[in-house]
Amino acid sequence: MSELKGFTLPRTPDGKSSLAPTPPWHYVANALAVEFSVDAARAAAFLPAGLTLLSDRAAVYFADWQSVTDGGAENLDPIRSQYRETIFLLSAQFEGKPVAYCPFIWVDQDISLMRGLTQGWPKQIGSVWITRAYDLPSPAAPLVGDGGVFGATLSFKDQRLANARVTLREKTDRLPDPTFAGAVNVRYFPDLSQGNHQRPLVHDLVQLRSRDVQIGDIWKGAASLDLFETATTELFALRPTSVGAGYRFSFAFTVDDVRVLKDLR
Amino acid sequence: MSELKGFTLPRTPDGKSSLAPTPPWHYVANALAVEFSVDAARAAAFLPAGLTLLSDRAAVYFADWQSVTDGGAENLDPIRSQYRETIFLLSAQFEGKPVAYCPFIWVDQDISLMRGLTQGWPKQIGSVWITRAYDLPSPAAPLVGDGGVFGATLSFKDQRLANARVTLREKTDRLPDPTFAGAVNVRYFPDLSQGNHQRPLVHDLVQLRSRDVQIGDIWKGAASLDLFETATTELFALRPTSVGAGYRFSFAFTVDDVRVLKDLR
Amino acid sequence: MSELKGFTLPRTPDGKSSLAPTPPWHYVANALAVEFSVDAARAAAFLPAGLTLLSDRAAVYFADWQSVTDGGAENLDPIRSQYRETIFLLSAQFEGKPVAYCPFIWVDQDISLMRGLTQGWPKQIGSVWITRAYDLPSPAAPLVGDGGVFGATLSFKDQRLANARVTLREKTDRLPDPTFAGAVNVRYFPDLSQGNHQRPLVHDLVQLRSRDVQIGDIWKGAASLDLFETATTELFALRPTSVGAGYRFSFAFTVDDVRVLKDLR
Amino acid sequence: MSELKGFTLPRTPDGKSSLAPTPPWHYVANALAVEFSVDAARAAAFLPAGLTLLSDRAAVYFADWQSVTDGGAENLDPIRSQYRETIFLLSAQFEGKPVAYCPFIWVDQDISLMRGLTQGWPKQIGSVWITRAYDLPSPAAPLVGDGGVFGATLSFKDQRLANARVTLREKTDRLPDPTFAGAVNVRYFPDLSQGNHQRPLVHDLVQLRSRDVQIGDIWKGAASLDLFETATTELFALRPTSVGAGYRFSFAFTVDDVRVLKDLR
Repeated sequence: MSELKGFTLPRTPDGKSSLAPTPPWHYVANALAVEFSVDAARAAAFLPAGLTLLSDRAAVYFADWQSVTDGGAENLDPIRSQYRETIFLLSAQFEGKPVAYCPFIWVDQDISLMRGLTQGWPKQIGSVWITRAYDLPSPAAPLVGDGGVFGATLSFKDQRLANARVTLREKTDRLPDPTFAGAVNVRYFPDLSQGNHQRPLVHDLVQLRSRDVQIGDIWKGAASLDLFETATTELFALRPTSVGAGYRFSFAFTVDDVRVLKDLR
Repeated sequence: MSELKGFTLPRTPDGKSSLAPTPPWHYVANALAVEFSVDAARAAAFLPAGLTLLSDRAAVYFADWQSVTDGGAENLDPIRSQYRETIFLLSAQFEGKPVAYCPFIWVDQDISLMRGLTQGWPKQIGSVWITRAYDLPSPAAPLVGDGGVFGATLSFKDQRLANARVTLREKTDRLPDPTFAGAVNVRYFPDLSQGNHQRPLVHDLVQLRSRDVQIGDIWKGAASLDLFETATTELFALRPTSVGAGYRFSFAFTVDDVRVLKDLR
Repeated sequence: MSELKGFTLPRTPDGKSSLAPTPPWHYVANALAVEFSVDAARAAAFLPAGLTLLSDRAAVYFADWQSVTDGGAENLDPIRSQYRETIFLLSAQFEGKPVAYCPFIWVDQDISLMRGLTQGWPKQIGSVWITRAYDLPSPAAPLVGDGGVFGATLSFKDQRLANARVTLREKTDRLPDPTFAGAVNVRYFPDLSQGNHQRPLVHDLVQLRSRDVQIGDIWKGAASLDLFETATTELFALRPTSVGAGYRFSFAFTVDDVRVLKDLR
Repeated sequence: MSELKGFTLPRTPDGKSSLAPTPPWHYVANALAVEFSVDAARAAAFLPAGLTLLSDRAAVYFADWQSVTDGGAENLDPIRSQYRETIFLLSAQFEGKPVAYCPFIWVDQDISLMRGLTQGWPKQIGSVWITRAYDLPSPAAPLVGDGGVFGATLSFKDQRLANARVTLREKTDRLPDPTFAGAVNVRYFPDLSQGNHQRPLVHDLVQLRSRDVQIGDIWKGAASLDLFETATTELFALRPTSVGAGYRFSFAFTVDDVRVLKDLR
């Protein structure tokens, strides 16, 4: 009998084929974020059992990632290390403590999708674009500084879901709120067996764990955010009732763990 | 407390956002297939516990799919119904009965990837192209008949993995062998919790179930198949030692069930 | 001195690298079409010198193509032969004769884009999806017959531009009007030299020529068409004031010529 | 009669739909480059009339671009401003002066393809990936400094054409050689009219012009470069006979002109 290896499918003799590689996973990103408020009743309806709404505050993050395993070989074939992502977060609480909850997230690579499922991120494949800064002054690149204007867009199945814009004004020490560190997700694996479609094999409230976190300069400023209605996602229920500040910052961290809070079955 | 709905993540108040919709799932495909032989020792090493190698016979299927739920709304926004897929199958046996086992499968849409994971298909996102037939005679389309030449290709992360070619010769009543009806997969959901990376939450030998199966005319002929070596998949271990017949046929079926054969934990 | 070969750039010693191969080009397509009316004043403003508006009739075609050169080698590597396209046509006249004029066209492959530029098609890269028929009855495929419902969509730069739907009712002998056979385009190559940005090197009214045309069964029925406004195309100026019939048909032809009607410089 | 506007097709009443916008075009890029030697006889065969081979030196550039028009609106919808590109350059001379000549170039956006055609770049749509640097230390990002390792890949029609790797060692004042400033291209527009397929409407030797050029720090180091053979491009004829230094640098410039050197008709 063979011994198949790999953190996820496909599991193979050498374990080199696993879509998501064996942790640890090292991440670095440039992020653009916008804080906004949502209709509290609509937002509350998106929370899983175990969480209650803390406030009507929400945030969206657009991130331009690079992610590798130990040794960083993925960066030599960067289609394996690079991806872009859009993350929506709501303000919830779990047992009295504030946590973020992610109702929707889109990413443009399958490796990230699979890695995310193991952390309960409800990932789908989407198209994300984010203005980049460069180390040269140019009409083609915004300044990372007062007056720099950055845009970001999200599309899903050929339809635009979100447009965001941030005009930087000043440095700040505060990350956007809610923040994804310690976010609570639902990891979930359904049972296709007849009669069990509503009785998942895995249904846990889990909390993200990361280590070796580093945050670069955080720039803050004015922002706009538009969400668009489509037939196949309920994202529009979380459209802004008002839009707050925008942010741009870099961050890096490592993941090889998740904390199980509660079995929801 | 809210009641979230949806067969898979994202689970939402209305359940309209689930990446894989609630079954039943109705499928129709045009398929090109090539039978080939593999090195038996290498193939045996790909089988999960519970399966043993039946023979060195293998097959690859390239399929041009349309898939919808009841009512067929996905076909009005066909980015949601259409996808292309490449499936590799080995000849195995389970408790003395012949079954196919899928070591590798690539698909070009996330909906299909997620649906597949619930059936144990080890799906990754790849790029698949398959020559099409048309209802008009044209130098731009092969005949579905004696002399018609069809090609198919598979690529993954910007690298070509497979080229296939089939020249049709005659009708046959026999599907390629191994065939994916009743294939046995491993459904698998790993635990990212520290210390549990090798102790999956779900690790079952499962058997595909389908109903309302229809098969159209099956054309058979000569074939070629080339697999290419890359650093990030072990597919090349299953390269042809010899290539057999090629096939082209259409088929349709419905899925809303999977049979659990054995818990492998 | 070398002798470079190739119908278009890149031109190379062996001529095998030319993005658009040397004609003839053989085409076959399944098409979905919708007739509609536009605001006549707005439509007239899209016509080039030499054409005048014939009527407010317009049509949009969504086509699922295969195209090859002599010998058909592209069909063995179908990423080179297959593409999908959306074509808008207005009803114009040239020297008293009715002709179609194409204000906008989107295609999803660069080979087709380049081939199109030599015919004056104003091609851009877009994403096009069209419901397919199959040779098997299935809930996942519409019937090519009374009651069959087909959809099509067009997106450009991650934004949806058009949704169309056609419900087939009956066979007809008439193609949609306007039809692209004999359409008149503007072939155009600008001069980037300072001072010459408005003085193109090529600016000709040209008429499409095709040969060996074949048309399959033409099905006709009810249709809907929605166009959506975006910031970077003026397509929405040609939105339907009313929507007429829808069509589905297959056609094939060969191109190796274009007719020059008039130099517009 | 209407007055259509736009630098390229599609030309429309408001001129907002032109695939390539009206110049000036402002560019900024992070580039990875590798110098290599080629077989001189094979390289010479790629040169157009008017150029002769200067040496067997060649270079490949992988660039991560942002490009906008005045005002920079494209950066708010970055699918319109961002693209990645791979450029191959040979060492040629024109009337005794050293110039670079580009036999092959791939880019991943149609806007850049069209803009390039007006400058004689023989652009095709390809897939390009380049390791990125970040402003934070992380296992997921190379250092822009001694020891930093960057990779880049090029694929075309689902086949890998090139893999490159650069390990930075030291700063330098010298750009890679040949360099694309002042490169000489062939702008070319064929005539599809029967009998004229070899008699282009436009066939000029042109020289790139740019202004407001800025170059950031140039890092240099060791490099590897592998090119792969495929059936549909002659790039492999220009495979390295030896590989020289690698480079990483940023640069920015503006284009609104091209210099015509010679009519080749």
